[in-house]
Amino acid sequence: MKLPTEILIRDVTLRDGLQDLPFVPTSDKYILYQALISSGIAELELTSFVRTDKVPSLADAKAFTELTNATEVVRWALVLNLRGAELALNAGLRHLQFVISVSEDHNRNNTGKSCEESLLELSLVVNRALEFHAVTEITIATSFGCPHTGAINSDLVHKFAEKVRRAGVSGITVADTIGTATPLEVENLIKKMVSNHPDIPIGVHLHDTRGLAISNALVAIENGARRIDGSLGGLGGCPFAPGATGNLALEDLVHALSHMGVRTGINLDQLITASKIACAISGHTMSSHVGIAGDRFAVLVPRI
Amino acid sequence: MKLPTEILIRDVTLRDGLQDLPFVPTSDKYILYQALISSGIAELELTSFVRTDKVPSLADAKAFTELTNATEVVRWALVLNLRGAELALNAGLRHLQFVISVSEDHNRNNTGKSCEESLLELSLVVNRALEFHAVTEITIATSFGCPHTGAINSDLVHKFAEKVRRAGVSGITVADTIGTATPLEVENLIKKMVSNHPDIPIGVHLHDTRGLAISNALVAIENGARRIDGSLGGLGGCPFAPGATGNLALEDLVHALSHMGVRTGINLDQLITASKIACAISGHTMSSHVGIAGDRFAVLVPRI
Repeated sequence: MKLPTEILIRDVTLRDGLQDLPFVPTSDKYILYQALISSGIAELELTSFVRTDKVPSLADAKAFTELTNATEVVRWALVLNLRGAELALNAGLRHLQFVISVSEDHNRNNTGKSCEESLLELSLVVNRALEFHAVTEITIATSFGCPHTGAINSDLVHKFAEKVRRAGVSGITVADTIGTATPLEVENLIKKMVSNHPDIPIGVHLHDTRGLAISNALVAIENGARRIDGSLGGLGGCPFAPGATGNLALEDLVHALSHMGVRTGINLDQLITASKIACAISGHTMSSHVGIAGDRFAVLVPRI
Repeated sequence: MKLPTEILIRDVTLRDGLQDLPFVPTSDKYILYQALISSGIAELELTSFVRTDKVPSLADAKAFTELTNATEVVRWALVLNLRGAELALNAGLRHLQFVISVSEDHNRNNTGKSCEESLLELSLVVNRALEFHAVTEITIATSFGCPHTGAINSDLVHKFAEKVRRAGVSGITVADTIGTATPLEVENLIKKMVSNHPDIPIGVHLHDTRGLAISNALVAIENGARRIDGSLGGLGGCPFAPGATGNLALEDLVHALSHMGVRTGINLDQLITASKIACAISGHTMSSHVGIAGDRFAVLVPRI
């Protein structure tokens, strides 16, 4: 395996992890936010500025942003249009994650817009962000599969990436939104994406629906991805059952990387503590492995 | 990724999956056995011939062996000594899986013997098996870590492999008994093991305690392992909590391989059915991902 010496981890618990769960009080989110920073997390998705009738769990986006007016961590806001971007910028955020699905059907379902309409909106957001000296990254959702139409041809993703580049994004994240990617597909997509766009960072957002999130993350890292998203305890997604789906579990990835010499800047024990807090405040079952089992050899069993 | 065109899968549900659970009636085991064969499983661990006071769940080893007097599948029996081997051979089995831990502490805990004593017993078993035209393979337990002493130096495993070769085994399986291996460690160990023993198959037995079983399996396959063990629904091990540990989940691995062009001879849908049967008869929570989510794109969601 050809692993780099370090990799950037972005926590998405506060946004993707909590968005489909019942509302968690802002003060509880703040406790989790502090635990994340204590563990060494350097970047996180703080919230999203979207329709509060659609995502009531993040209806406190403005208040939470103002509460966390921090300098020690990079705070990203998910936005889907100019209105959301302006709300995020006015609340004080300077890092915008714009999401478009490469699948026309999923994008319309998710945003009410066609892909072309979303691309136009992206251009407006990038330009408005520049006025605030803010950066805009793009997440290309459903890059490996669409819940409505099935398989996605990787050529479509690469053509889409060219379009978002023209809009002026400063980074591209490919997302396996519904957890269908195999390591072979991740290898092929990331290798070509990194080759096509050597001047900007390529990130990967993975879901563990079919148990391949960690395998996919490691392959992505081997092939030049510069950032991996994940959530504490595997929170997020639209769970069928505990442990079945959700985001890549951050503590499982950090554990693996820490024992393979890849620096993340994150303290595993403190991350596990943060994960327990995340599960406690959200009422979610811990669905990471390391969150339950702990670091390897942390506890040895007496011989009987 | 350099994947082979095919790989041998060995199901261990009936042995490792059930051994620490309350006794499952022999007739229920037989239903599961038939479901496994229907799915295309070609090899399986049927049972173990060990002290029934230690492993009461497999106390029906003789009766179950006689019930499954099949020719369509290779049935392996786990044994720890000559007495167990003779019971297995007399019951009609011709494939013996002898287990020794490379960790002295764990071997004594597991078998009551020192490693040297177990190696002597292995020689006796190999010779007795030959009288029955039966084969004996070895599983080197705790090859990546010991629950009592922690890390295991891979040099120790390679030296141990030389010793078991001298006893005349026809295959070597390295086992991550407590789920501590990283993909980098698996790569290094398997690469050298395959290089040192090109004339016999190297198998891998993995536990998912820290969420790395699938990653480790794929790396093992890439580096020349010829067989992967796994259990339905991730059953087995000594669970702290549902989903946390257990064996590599077979349906998750078969799903991944099937979408990367690696033939296993197994029908995924029928394997998922077998997994549901395994969970139902054992009362175990389904802890595989694909067992819950199903094959990718099997169900598409209407656009709303």
